[in-house]
Amino acid sequence: MDEIPRLDVVAIGNALVDVLASAKDEDLTTLDLIKGTMALVDHERSESIYASMGPTTEASGGSAANTAAGIAALGGRAAFLGRVADDQFGQAFTHDIRSIGVAFDPTPTKAVPGKVVTGHCLVLVTDDAERTMATHLGVASEFASSDLHDGHLSASQVVYLEGYLWEQPTAKVAMREAIEMAHRNDAAVALSVSDPFCVEHHRREFLDLLTGDLEMLFANEDEITMLFDVPDFDAAVDAVSETGVLAVLTRGAAGSVVVTASGPVAVPAGPVERVVDTTGAGDLFAAGFLYGITNGLTPENSARLGSVCASEVISHVGARPQADLRALAVASGLFA
Amino acid sequence: MDEIPRLDVVAIGNALVDVLASAKDEDLTTLDLIKGTMALVDHERSESIYASMGPTTEASGGSAANTAAGIAALGGRAAFLGRVADDQFGQAFTHDIRSIGVAFDPTPTKAVPGKVVTGHCLVLVTDDAERTMATHLGVASEFASSDLHDGHLSASQVVYLEGYLWEQPTAKVAMREAIEMAHRNDAAVALSVSDPFCVEHHRREFLDLLTGDLEMLFANEDEITMLFDVPDFDAAVDAVSETGVLAVLTRGAAGSVVVTASGPVAVPAGPVERVVDTTGAGDLFAAGFLYGITNGLTPENSARLGSVCASEVISHVGARPQADLRALAVASGLFA
Repeated sequence: MDEIPRLDVVAIGNALVDVLASAKDEDLTTLDLIKGTMALVDHERSESIYASMGPTTEASGGSAANTAAGIAALGGRAAFLGRVADDQFGQAFTHDIRSIGVAFDPTPTKAVPGKVVTGHCLVLVTDDAERTMATHLGVASEFASSDLHDGHLSASQVVYLEGYLWEQPTAKVAMREAIEMAHRNDAAVALSVSDPFCVEHHRREFLDLLTGDLEMLFANEDEITMLFDVPDFDAAVDAVSETGVLAVLTRGAAGSVVVTASGPVAVPAGPVERVVDTTGAGDLFAAGFLYGITNGLTPENSARLGSVCASEVISHVGARPQADLRALAVASGLFA
Repeated sequence: MDEIPRLDVVAIGNALVDVLASAKDEDLTTLDLIKGTMALVDHERSESIYASMGPTTEASGGSAANTAAGIAALGGRAAFLGRVADDQFGQAFTHDIRSIGVAFDPTPTKAVPGKVVTGHCLVLVTDDAERTMATHLGVASEFASSDLHDGHLSASQVVYLEGYLWEQPTAKVAMREAIEMAHRNDAAVALSVSDPFCVEHHRREFLDLLTGDLEMLFANEDEITMLFDVPDFDAAVDAVSETGVLAVLTRGAAGSVVVTASGPVAVPAGPVERVVDTTGAGDLFAAGFLYGITNGLTPENSARLGSVCASEVISHVGARPQADLRALAVASGLFA
């Protein structure tokens, strides 16, 4: 007798606290950061960027963690796997993700102030609402097989992996194990390629994953064209169609394209009164999509739900939902 | 030859990090918190309230610290005195207040996780934008004479004291010293009575301070009627008029009344599109007033500037200014 899965999605990624501040385009130039992207930085560089930033707000973040939070906010059953230290940032991260309803049961690493710390992402939000990030991974960089949670992994319909983890050798080993565990349990495996720099660093591996390891792929326009090394988005859609993987391709204000076995379908972006901070847009799109697909929506309607969730998160500062996503989903007519 | 003061205001208060979350009225009842007020709680109770809260955002706070931040945001020269620990909250507090331009030069207390920590204020924001607070003072409760900074105190036009400090015996001794130091340097001393519970606890002492120790008093409608034990606001205005102290009395959406030697003047509240979170309203009103009064504005126009600053801070989550206060002040026509 098959056990009924008790989770919609288990997400695996870097456990990070976002440290957000407003910034000017000139600040990014001075700090040698590339607008709209994420850079991994060591402790020293993180401290030096932080010192140059204006007053900050701290809020839980982490790409896959934001997705898990969004799924829970929609009423879904989500778990998160990631590594924190037992410092104040680690406590805040743990509190926040649990309080939104995500199962998170880490063994925190002993903190050593200034040396062994919970990871944090310095987010510089420019006037055009674009975010530029510098992440010091801290203990998140030590994510390993011991951080996998068999109970969660064997109880989930989808195992969602953050591409950022491919930067870390021990995490990569753990991801391979998670993929095997998922497939033993008839779960689908989804990958977000996370960032153009991840595609640049791990292009070959990501392409290999598309031949049997993945059932779902999340990428934005830049990332997918880079992954297939093609001149434009249409060519990327053609290329990903041939893999047979369900691909969810986001294009910012231009909406998204879902590529299924029956071909690509374009879905418009949700309406937004004022875009304040795009941090978390892709993560929350993935949340809506994954909640939809694990709760009986078609891929097209799942993408519509992704648009609803992304619209909410870009209308305020911070990468986690603030409004009642469930109510927004109902208002959108996608659910009774 | 008199030395020219190098600071407009030195503010003394509890160094706190705000931990903000949305809440329902029922949550306040369950948690036994009185809406709109601040309660001091021990570590255990703070942990238990925190555990019951939804996802949080962390941002620097502390009443007098918010005021100092507002003065700096207006282009004023402000310093802050308060005690932090060398933990992540203490580092964030220090970074944030310095990055807005406030002089802050503490000797952080060695942190002991879960025991000796930087103070934090759990802020529950209800749908009506009202905030209810539970503060665990942490090392702020140990503020003492050794935390006074002679350089700042002797260089400032106004020494601004937070009424909350009267809860703490060693801080009270330090406040007496600060008042003496201020008067030796011809500085004015201002007190914010901070909260109805402070008035209830320290009514006799606050009234004594009005006879020679204070040049300025900040209170809201509830606090001033409670302080003078009178039935209504008009009677409180009469009572405070007799003290000869410059009184700045705020009344929320009804604006404020400034009581000078020539009588009371009413000033309307600033326009606000949507009130999101009233945390910091009184603190930022005080910032505008103090900046005005130390930079050549009349008391009436200083109160107008207070309204501008309060309006900005209640239009978003968090107790520190996010918009360019200087630009808002110029736009209001109060400055050239």
